[in-house]
Amino acid sequence: MKHIALLGATGSIGIQTTDVIRNHPEEFNLFAMAFRRNVEKALPLIREFDPEIIVVQSEETKAELIEANVQADVLVGSVAMKEIATHDHVDVLVNAVMGSVGLEATLGAIESRKQVALANKETLVTAGHLVMEAAKRNGVDILPVDSEHSAIYQCLNGENHSDIHKLTLTASGGSFRDKARSELEGVTVEDALNHPNWSMGAKITIDSATMMNKGLEVIEAHWLFDIPYDDIDVIQHRESVIHSMVEFNDKSVMAQLGTPDMRVPIQYALTYPNRLEMKDTKTLNLVEIGKLHFEEMDFERFPCLRMAYEAGRAGGTMPTVLNAANEQAVALFLEGDIDFLRIESLIERALSEHELIERPSLETIVEVDQETRARVKSYVK
Amino acid sequence: MKHIALLGATGSIGIQTTDVIRNHPEEFNLFAMAFRRNVEKALPLIREFDPEIIVVQSEETKAELIEANVQADVLVGSVAMKEIATHDHVDVLVNAVMGSVGLEATLGAIESRKQVALANKETLVTAGHLVMEAAKRNGVDILPVDSEHSAIYQCLNGENHSDIHKLTLTASGGSFRDKARSELEGVTVEDALNHPNWSMGAKITIDSATMMNKGLEVIEAHWLFDIPYDDIDVIQHRESVIHSMVEFNDKSVMAQLGTPDMRVPIQYALTYPNRLEMKDTKTLNLVEIGKLHFEEMDFERFPCLRMAYEAGRAGGTMPTVLNAANEQAVALFLEGDIDFLRIESLIERALSEHELIERPSLETIVEVDQETRARVKSYVK
Repeated sequence: MKHIALLGATGSIGIQTTDVIRNHPEEFNLFAMAFRRNVEKALPLIREFDPEIIVVQSEETKAELIEANVQADVLVGSVAMKEIATHDHVDVLVNAVMGSVGLEATLGAIESRKQVALANKETLVTAGHLVMEAAKRNGVDILPVDSEHSAIYQCLNGENHSDIHKLTLTASGGSFRDKARSELEGVTVEDALNHPNWSMGAKITIDSATMMNKGLEVIEAHWLFDIPYDDIDVIQHRESVIHSMVEFNDKSVMAQLGTPDMRVPIQYALTYPNRLEMKDTKTLNLVEIGKLHFEEMDFERFPCLRMAYEAGRAGGTMPTVLNAANEQAVALFLEGDIDFLRIESLIERALSEHELIERPSLETIVEVDQETRARVKSYVK
Repeated sequence: MKHIALLGATGSIGIQTTDVIRNHPEEFNLFAMAFRRNVEKALPLIREFDPEIIVVQSEETKAELIEANVQADVLVGSVAMKEIATHDHVDVLVNAVMGSVGLEATLGAIESRKQVALANKETLVTAGHLVMEAAKRNGVDILPVDSEHSAIYQCLNGENHSDIHKLTLTASGGSFRDKARSELEGVTVEDALNHPNWSMGAKITIDSATMMNKGLEVIEAHWLFDIPYDDIDVIQHRESVIHSMVEFNDKSVMAQLGTPDMRVPIQYALTYPNRLEMKDTKTLNLVEIGKLHFEEMDFERFPCLRMAYEAGRAGGTMPTVLNAANEQAVALFLEGDIDFLRIESLIERALSEHELIERPSLETIVEVDQETRARVKSYVK
């Protein structure tokens, strides 16, 4: 029985994680959960899984839970997130919070030698050097939860790191893949949220449309698999059937395929190196699909992807700026404050105005993150 | 340094095996080789690799070698093939002879605990129960050399057997995939030898056109991976880029991809569980290929595939009859004695007239093999 601490329980990945736990009650137990403030979504989970500890963002939310007669210990704030991530009774941390708020909890879990299932991209993007160094030092497996890195993880199962020649991440192309840049001028939030293959949270769907999602994944892959940027490719694959690939030094290519169901990589991160039955997801039927398409990625069409490679190669605090500027810009777009294409230009400006700091500490990362968000807001006023 | 005994050195797989050895002289040494009678092809190999023992089919061929001033020990006959396969100095047997003649050498190598790289389908098709039982008992890895089973082997690396849900073999469709059965009446040997993707020997190219090749592979996969026939699928995939796939119980599908170069699976069989650089083969470029196609296999269009599943499920001596009847029928076709479609009807008749013997011994298999060949010849007179 694995005792799980789930951060971001009411988000898209969080809910799907509880579904995996539900399907295997003999294997998993939801020991603790954290969510921001969505009490309506959280209450059914709390009643079903009866976690011992719950972490929320504010005293207000805590009061709502107590009013709803919740019996568990309810803690408040991000320090408490780290507390459950490092709790003695916890075996696995599933970190599915959005943004850089999950960073300290991940590092804490690593130092406490928990298995870490990571759905929080920012952890590796902004602090990959700290996280992977700590993971190595503590002999901890960082299991990626998104479909691309889970695919690569599965492709590397049983292989030698020195035999890796190239990683290829696949990109669906997002909501606007069939539009030219010139057609993106007036697109609405609603248009952008209409992803062709995956049903995901709002922020990641926008990141998918700008291709920043793939850019962040490139940086994540660099850290997770210790592979230079020159050996990480992105290709457009509109069906999202091949989730990613690894080419080895003998030119053999391993790929992981499947239907778009995030519960597969979530469950794999919980069961690795074993697998468990997944009953109610659709079986991949290639004959029914008929054709798989592959196209080159256009770095001019998707400047966010170019910026991500540049920030990744520059290293230091540049990926932190990339990520914070993007989070702030996407928030501004979702709130209706800026046009879609402005997301890119705000990030570009934030990067160009930042003075790189090499090998930043956690404190520096958090500072740069906050400073960047404020700066991006100030660009818009 | 691995010392290799190569059976079938002058055939298509044999020549490509020597190319792998040539590219890694620090890893491999051609200690012994066997070929039937193609002295012209053999002499350059003998001069280059200087094997200590050579096995040929007849005294006549031996005399030719001595006349050509070959210094190695030259032995004659299939008993001598077993001798080199089990030789103390040999680490790996590469069995690339065609037909059931390689069976005893494979079993000998297993009993002598050699690593076995198997390009000889008939070994598993006719005697899978004996070979795999012996391999298990001796703790020997049977490394498949054809692209499909090598793909599956690679997909299973690091996985648990109990997590396998389904194997999917891909089939290019062969030389006549775009022809209806009615169009196959008058096809010539030359037409049949024109395979769309792979450059292979004549017999296997014909087997690819009748789909018997895939049928034999299904039976081979059944034994090699201990998977019931109901869990082995075949789909048509005209590009032959995905070499085969494994679906696991969590619906995750692993696939191995590559350009059509048999040296990749040959080398993998020699280096497993490691890999080695493969310099002069083409890198897979999915963007250049653009599209991959998948179609259902039509068992009425390809009765050999249906017969193979039926013979496999029936078990006992049925696969031996299937294989022997096919070898004889293909030989008759290649010699111009029968039409292409007659291959199928001869096999069908041979199967229907055979009385199944359960769990046949090696002697019974050899007897049924010879009896079937004679019978198929007699159908044609």
